[in-house]
This record gives sequence, structure tokens and C-alpha cells, in this order.
Amino acid sequence: MQTDTRFNLVDSDDVIGTTVYDAGDENVGKVERLVLTKRDGRVACAVLSFGGLWGLGSEYYPIPWSSLTYDEGLDGFRIRLTKEQIQNGPKYDPNRGYDWSDENSRRIHGYYGAEYPS
Amino acid sequence: MQTDTRFNLVDSDDVIGTTVYDAGDENVGKVERLVLTKRDGRVACAVLSFGGLWGLGSEYYPIPWSSLTYDEGLDGFRIRLTKEQIQNGPKYDPNRGYDWSDENSRRIHGYYGAEYPS
Repeated sequence: MQTDTRFNLVDSDDVIGTTVYDAGDENVGKVERLVLTKRDGRVACAVLSFGGLWGLGSEYYPIPWSSLTYDEGLDGFRIRLTKEQIQNGPKYDPNRGYDWSDENSRRIHGYYGAEYPS
Repeated sequence: MQTDTRFNLVDSDDVIGTTVYDAGDENVGKVERLVLTKRDGRVACAVLSFGGLWGLGSEYYPIPWSSLTYDEGLDGFRIRLTKEQIQNGPKYDPNRGYDWSDENSRRIHGYYGAEYPS
């Protein structure tokens, strides 16, 4: 990912596939895809997988985009959520896809106590 | 791409790779990637290639996200720009990448007379 702070924008190719670290700097997952609002092109959710340390299998976990912060030192995203929150949160089988309705996205934001992008 | 209008959100995998049509319904290009603002996760630009009918070679053309409209009938994006506008607009070699500074993104929006996402 482009780490130079003069660059205020980032290519989707440099977000998708990027490593996600927990509060203890452990590599726990990665960004699989982004979910955008059709109307105004906002990133509503990031969809993550946690196959590694957290051992949450092959399912995909949509979380509010605002739960991730890019950390230049780690060259990856820091997640402000715990394994327990993720484990009990919304998830889906990537082979089956997800119902990307506004209602479901609001449910995801509600579960994590995040503000829904207006 | 998910065409059901009940679905207000769309997966990045269903945007990247999607066909772009001109005003005459001709397939002229495709979406190669998206460019996001780091601060608030807005899609600022779409990066397109036009290898087909318009014959604009292998270079990538960043355009304002607002220049594309999803058309359900076509199951693709309609571009509200002409070949001439694109041809004379900003472009880059995908093997060399692009300087995704705020300044450059504003320049792209300025060239196409589009409002910069606030």
C-alpha cells in the first residue's frame, strides 16, 4: 500500500488483499473485498477473512469500513474489534454471496455500533 | 453486477471488470480499478481501459466516479464522456502506476468539469 502521506488516495488494488492486524500487532486476517453504496460511491463495509491466528474458517465477515485504520508502520490495517465481536457478528459463505441491501448494511453497522455512512 | 434495485450496495468485485458503454450503447471499455480517498473512504476515481472500439491502447484513464452511471438494461456502466475527452485527458502506464495525490485527483476532476468529492 502507498504509505507516503502526500498521497491522499489509494488504489483499490492496494486495499484488497491487504493484511489486517489486531491490537497486539498480530496478523489476523486480510481484506477480501469492499462494499460500496451505489448512489454516492462510499465504502460502506470491508469484507474480511480470518483464516490465521483467529481461526475463524473460510467464511467472510463484513465490518464497517470505519473499524479499520491504516497503519503505516505495519503497512496494513489495524482492526478496532475483538475476535469475540467478529465471531458473533454477521458472516457469510463466499460461495453463496451476501444480500447487499441497505437494511443488511445498517444491521452490520448496528451490530458494531458504527455510524452508517450518510 | 447485482441489478436488483433493493440492493443499494455493491461488491467491489462486481464493479471492477464491469463493461463500460458509450452513449450509443457500444462496449468501449471496462473498469480496471477504483481509487478511494483514505480519509473517508469515498470512491474518487474509476480507472478505465479502452482497448476495444475506441482503440485507446493499453494505457489506463482515471475519470471521476461521477462520470459513470450504472445501467441495468446494459448490466454495465454508461460513460458520460466522449472519446475525444478521454483521449486528451489524464492517463498513465499501468506498469508504472500513478501519483495518487489529492492534487492529481483534483486535476482529473477539473479536466472533466466534475465536482471533487468533499
